[in-house]
Amino acid sequence: MGLEIERKFLVCPELLGELQYGESICQGYIPTQDKTAVRIRLKGSAAFLTLKGANRGAVRSEFEYAIPVSDAQAILAELCSGPKIEKTRYCRTVGAHVWEIDVFAGSNEGLVVAEIELNSEHEPFEKPPWVAREVTGDARYYNTSLLTKPYLTW
Amino acid sequence: MGLEIERKFLVCPELLGELQYGESICQGYIPTQDKTAVRIRLKGSAAFLTLKGANRGAVRSEFEYAIPVSDAQAILAELCSGPKIEKTRYCRTVGAHVWEIDVFAGSNEGLVVAEIELNSEHEPFEKPPWVAREVTGDARYYNTSLLTKPYLTW
Repeated sequence: MGLEIERKFLVCPELLGELQYGESICQGYIPTQDKTAVRIRLKGSAAFLTLKGANRGAVRSEFEYAIPVSDAQAILAELCSGPKIEKTRYCRTVGAHVWEIDVFAGSNEGLVVAEIELNSEHEPFEKPPWVAREVTGDARYYNTSLLTKPYLTW
Repeated sequence: MGLEIERKFLVCPELLGELQYGESICQGYIPTQDKTAVRIRLKGSAAFLTLKGANRGAVRSEFEYAIPVSDAQAILAELCSGPKIEKTRYCRTVGAHVWEIDVFAGSNEGLVVAEIELNSEHEPFEKPPWVAREVTGDARYYNTSLLTKPYLTW
């Protein structure tokens, strides 16, 4: 259990240079009535079931559990009827922090975002040159929004 | 992961005799848009996060994971805004099967149901004298229904 404190930025892909060691992610959601997210994620050779509360600025509660990959595949097929988010995640260390760079595919092709996890909402961090406009709290960039309004339709 | 094949019956409490070694259960749900249930259950000194698909007769898919009790308490408080189901569960072996007898409390006080888990929908089983009318598939007796339309309001 914990609080997830995360800031999200758009990326200038042409300044990124070569990306290495990406992990493919496929994730779906069980449709909820409120802003709670119930996410099932296949990531490389692992799988996770995650509950996330509503965003409060850069902060949201998060509960994540590793589950068998075969379970995740069955849950995605049986219980997540909607479209899925497909992306490749790359990690890059800058100063004291690790940035997660998500390169979206499928109906969100062309979108590249970078996220940094912090210990407090106003923790300082080094901003690399390939990081552009901040989109923390911009609901259009939530993965759950990208399911229903994918980037290619903007 | 698995399929849950379960039949549910009303109980004649006066024929039950003494119930022993009950475990108290408190469970809540993350409100979903469809018939998928996302359940958080505190049971005795353990806790579980469970995803269940829609019922197809006595059959539904079920994915259950043990989680830390402190997580379950936080999820119930933060993400399950609605009322909770409170009940005490007793187990009784009859022939080759274990019956789970749920004695509801709170706003479902007075309701007692017994469930039997089977390996196939038409597996034969011994019906003890305290088992009354079958209510498998009767949506009023789903725990999710008992949250919004509790037994005391029927």
